[in-house]
Amino acid sequence: MKGNGTISTLYEHGTLASLMAGNMAGTITLEDLLKHGSTGIGTFDGLDGEVIILDGEVYQAVSDGTVNHVTDRQAKMPFASVHTPADLEELELTDVDFNALNGKFVRQHELKNVFAALRLTGKFSHVKVRIAPKQEEPYPSLLEVAQGQPTFTRDDVDGTIIGYYAPEIFGSVTAAGWHLHFISDDRQYAGHLLGFTAPALTGDLQIFDTLEQHLPIADQAFRQGEVDMATLRDSIAQSEGNQD
Amino acid sequence: MKGNGTISTLYEHGTLASLMAGNMAGTITLEDLLKHGSTGIGTFDGLDGEVIILDGEVYQAVSDGTVNHVTDRQAKMPFASVHTPADLEELELTDVDFNALNGKFVRQHELKNVFAALRLTGKFSHVKVRIAPKQEEPYPSLLEVAQGQPTFTRDDVDGTIIGYYAPEIFGSVTAAGWHLHFISDDRQYAGHLLGFTAPALTGDLQIFDTLEQHLPIADQAFRQGEVDMATLRDSIAQSEGNQD
Repeated sequence: MKGNGTISTLYEHGTLASLMAGNMAGTITLEDLLKHGSTGIGTFDGLDGEVIILDGEVYQAVSDGTVNHVTDRQAKMPFASVHTPADLEELELTDVDFNALNGKFVRQHELKNVFAALRLTGKFSHVKVRIAPKQEEPYPSLLEVAQGQPTFTRDDVDGTIIGYYAPEIFGSVTAAGWHLHFISDDRQYAGHLLGFTAPALTGDLQIFDTLEQHLPIADQAFRQGEVDMATLRDSIAQSEGNQD
Repeated sequence: MKGNGTISTLYEHGTLASLMAGNMAGTITLEDLLKHGSTGIGTFDGLDGEVIILDGEVYQAVSDGTVNHVTDRQAKMPFASVHTPADLEELELTDVDFNALNGKFVRQHELKNVFAALRLTGKFSHVKVRIAPKQEEPYPSLLEVAQGQPTFTRDDVDGTIIGYYAPEIFGSVTAAGWHLHFISDDRQYAGHLLGFTAPALTGDLQIFDTLEQHLPIADQAFRQGEVDMATLRDSIAQSEGNQD
């Protein structure tokens, strides 16, 4: 937020708690989602893959490792986060990996209690992603899916990391800490980022003063969903965390 | 949310997690808060009392048991929730107390996974409120304040309950379940509602599809605040819960 009181908003539809309860049916169309931002991440109906949204273009990594360019704006998503890039702080980072992001980077930028968007571009020496496989009803919990999902690695790949940082107190709602997706420049390789190393990346950081949390209140599965509070935070961290 | 996709928003400034960490300085002016709604609850700078906002009029119960009508729109608050009444479901309830609200009412209206506003008016046979006493720096934690705060009871009092229901997964951010304040019709008695009984009340319920969570990202105490996740949920519940 600049001193003039500009509002900077991260829009989130759905919660990981609801996915954890097995509510994986899509509850917002891409058309409606994209009204709230041009850039973001998410998943499609039935937990079908990992979504990367860059400049209004939507890419879906599916569990055979391929990437679709999605143009159907009526496709639905059970969970997604988007924002409109603004007030960006430019970044030039060297020797980047999750250890550096989780440690020094969070401290230097005082992120621990705020929501922020991160975009990093460049040549990666190593990338590891996972891609959630599409589920059928009756849906399992997100945790069960996360335990058996395919992973894909690449060395020496040019691409972009896009995603969000969330404060720990929101770790029952969304992924606390970093939740990042990756897509290669050639749009042939993408997924939920589990690990990476890069000698030098450029990009930007945006700190939000507002989380606009939208809930699918007309969806009966959402309204009736049973959340296991005792295990929720750990299950989300286990399903959505990074491995480094 | 109506079928036409109307967005219904609960606006919240600050978090109870931050109050729990002892960040009690005001971070939003009443002027800015009231841009987001005409009705709500909160507290003033230094945890100074319990605030009730009805139709744009702001009342502050202070810890000697008196009630101020606040007209200074530059007064600041560290935590507040407001909304604009709309799409109201009218209520006529009999034999009302926290047991009924927490049990049957939540089930009948399928509130457990949503944010909602409740307004109930009528003759109360018994009311018990607490009023947070103003704190000075260095601020204690909200929990310490809650443990020594004055309570006030009234029998046979006409008044209004106003406040919110929040899903359990947001219980590290705000008060999970009901967070209700009370004010008498004569504006002489008010506070954070700990218990009540009423033979018959009328009012309305509003279910939100959006939580607009605003954070004081320019405030250094907020940015640096240390949250004790191990005790946070229980401390918030202990500080902000009802007694019935």
